[in-house]
Amino acid sequence: MAARAGVSVKTVSNVINGAAVGAGTRERVQQAIADLGYRPNISARNLRRGRTGILALAVPELDQPYFAELARLIVDTADEHGYTILIDQTGGGDRREQYVIDGMGAKLVDGVIFSPVAMDRLDIARRVDTTPLVLLGERVSAGPADHVAIDNVAAARTATAHLAGLGRRRIAAIGAQPDRVQGTSHMRERGFRAALEEAGLPVEESLIVPAREYHRRDGAEAAAYLTELEEPPDAVFCFNDTLALGAMRTLHDRGYRIPQDVAVVGFDDIDDGRYNVPSLTTVSPDKAGIARSALRLLLDRIEAIDSPPREVTVRHELRVRESSGVTSRRSRAT
Amino acid sequence: MAARAGVSVKTVSNVINGAAVGAGTRERVQQAIADLGYRPNISARNLRRGRTGILALAVPELDQPYFAELARLIVDTADEHGYTILIDQTGGGDRREQYVIDGMGAKLVDGVIFSPVAMDRLDIARRVDTTPLVLLGERVSAGPADHVAIDNVAAARTATAHLAGLGRRRIAAIGAQPDRVQGTSHMRERGFRAALEEAGLPVEESLIVPAREYHRRDGAEAAAYLTELEEPPDAVFCFNDTLALGAMRTLHDRGYRIPQDVAVVGFDDIDDGRYNVPSLTTVSPDKAGIARSALRLLLDRIEAIDSPPREVTVRHELRVRESSGVTSRRSRAT
Repeated sequence: MAARAGVSVKTVSNVINGAAVGAGTRERVQQAIADLGYRPNISARNLRRGRTGILALAVPELDQPYFAELARLIVDTADEHGYTILIDQTGGGDRREQYVIDGMGAKLVDGVIFSPVAMDRLDIARRVDTTPLVLLGERVSAGPADHVAIDNVAAARTATAHLAGLGRRRIAAIGAQPDRVQGTSHMRERGFRAALEEAGLPVEESLIVPAREYHRRDGAEAAAYLTELEEPPDAVFCFNDTLALGAMRTLHDRGYRIPQDVAVVGFDDIDDGRYNVPSLTTVSPDKAGIARSALRLLLDRIEAIDSPPREVTVRHELRVRESSGVTSRRSRAT
Repeated sequence: MAARAGVSVKTVSNVINGAAVGAGTRERVQQAIADLGYRPNISARNLRRGRTGILALAVPELDQPYFAELARLIVDTADEHGYTILIDQTGGGDRREQYVIDGMGAKLVDGVIFSPVAMDRLDIARRVDTTPLVLLGERVSAGPADHVAIDNVAAARTATAHLAGLGRRRIAAIGAQPDRVQGTSHMRERGFRAALEEAGLPVEESLIVPAREYHRRDGAEAAAYLTELEEPPDAVFCFNDTLALGAMRTLHDRGYRIPQDVAVVGFDDIDDGRYNVPSLTTVSPDKAGIARSALRLLLDRIEAIDSPPREVTVRHELRVRESSGVTSRRSRAT
């Protein structure tokens, strides 16, 4: 471009960055910029500030559609801001999560959006690395860093109340993780229990089924256990959609009609549930809102490293579909 | 660790890297290593060589379960080799793919595994960046770089022949991309056409349905078109599983029984298809084999930048499930 405009590289840089340059020179450079289809980006400015223009997104599992869908939204939102997102799949383990909060290699990324599983509030609070960090999810809440989440207790209460409102009386839950005293599963179980109490239903511990992971196979196994109870449930609230999709497969295989015999509600509103037969009633977190909020907090943090941590709660809603509502075989996916 | 063993950092480094050190010293260092639970990693060696220990995986879409499942396998395989994988979701566009083949920011990554959509053989051949590069998929085949793929023509022919072997006579295809003269869709269509000819069936152009993207909604739309034909098909080969899952939803909504009225075959063998009702017959590429081969080629390339490019073809197999075979409502997912 400098050659095309017949000026030095330094002069091009001055024009782009708005420094003082003669009017004729500015015009030649701007014409060269237009001719070459140059896309203004922030990398030159970043490099001057010792930045890379790269942000990291660290999530436990990309083959959980919730994280894959969220990753796409965060990548696209960052791209609009001129940032590249690189995604680190941590597997939720200590070693790889420690690497994330230690800054993922010095000078590599300008900031990190992190959905922790193993790292807790204390781990985050005592990190020495100063890479700007925004936390997602429920593992670590208000305190040591900027944080974006939905109200998981309220969401689980709404989902369970929906099942109670259909007249279901033996409502099961799939996805408890009794060894985790905080985090997503804990909050969803709290909401589930609260809704049963509000509906005047007994909390039967045998109907609260643990799941080590949240994949389809875990849901399928949990549903198998439920169908073998002396008195199987007439509704199941699954703590995510993939658990629900696995559970529905098992219920189908064992001759249960959904929702007539067992109503099913999931959590996440992934694409899979919308097209499933039956389509899946689910809690829909505002994933685009999570992506936007996380990016905004992180970009603000990069500019003002010492400001106090902020807390953003993103909205959610219940999407009622065939697995708990519409029963016509020919109804369309919504 | 050096302090614990009472030696210099240099001495610890010598022990770890197998250099000459006195026997007593070596023992003290090794004991300190054991006491501290030190995990040997390659980062110190990498830093000496000007490497970061980080590899990139660039894929078009993470919310395609195929890429999410492949990403998990590649991340885990790289971790076994002491490398961190960061994932770049390119969206398949020119600008973000150009960034990938330009090395993703100088000195950032030691190598790239790249599944291109927009970049073609010429783009790859004329790159000036020297970051080691391994290509996945069918967009760019043998030639400019190391390359891992399955035989897509053969796989599509097997899938289509399976449908013809069931006695189906009006076999449709969903997923054609007539404006792309190379790549996955092109090769799967070639295999589809070849199988029809081998089975003595006419190739009806109206039964070859394009799909701009390969998501469920695209499959649902294509199936809607097929059901509105004067003579709808009795079988559909979808060029990936998410197209098939979307198509099956529409077929169900319009009263078609699967497989009795329309048999359906997909491609990729994603978890979703295994648990769907009906479970989905599909071409199963050896994803773990792709991950292992890609890593091996890339690590070899990092060591020997000038060796000639290699080509690896990974195996695939057809997994027959309910959507084209087993029809019992109570059969189990496999």
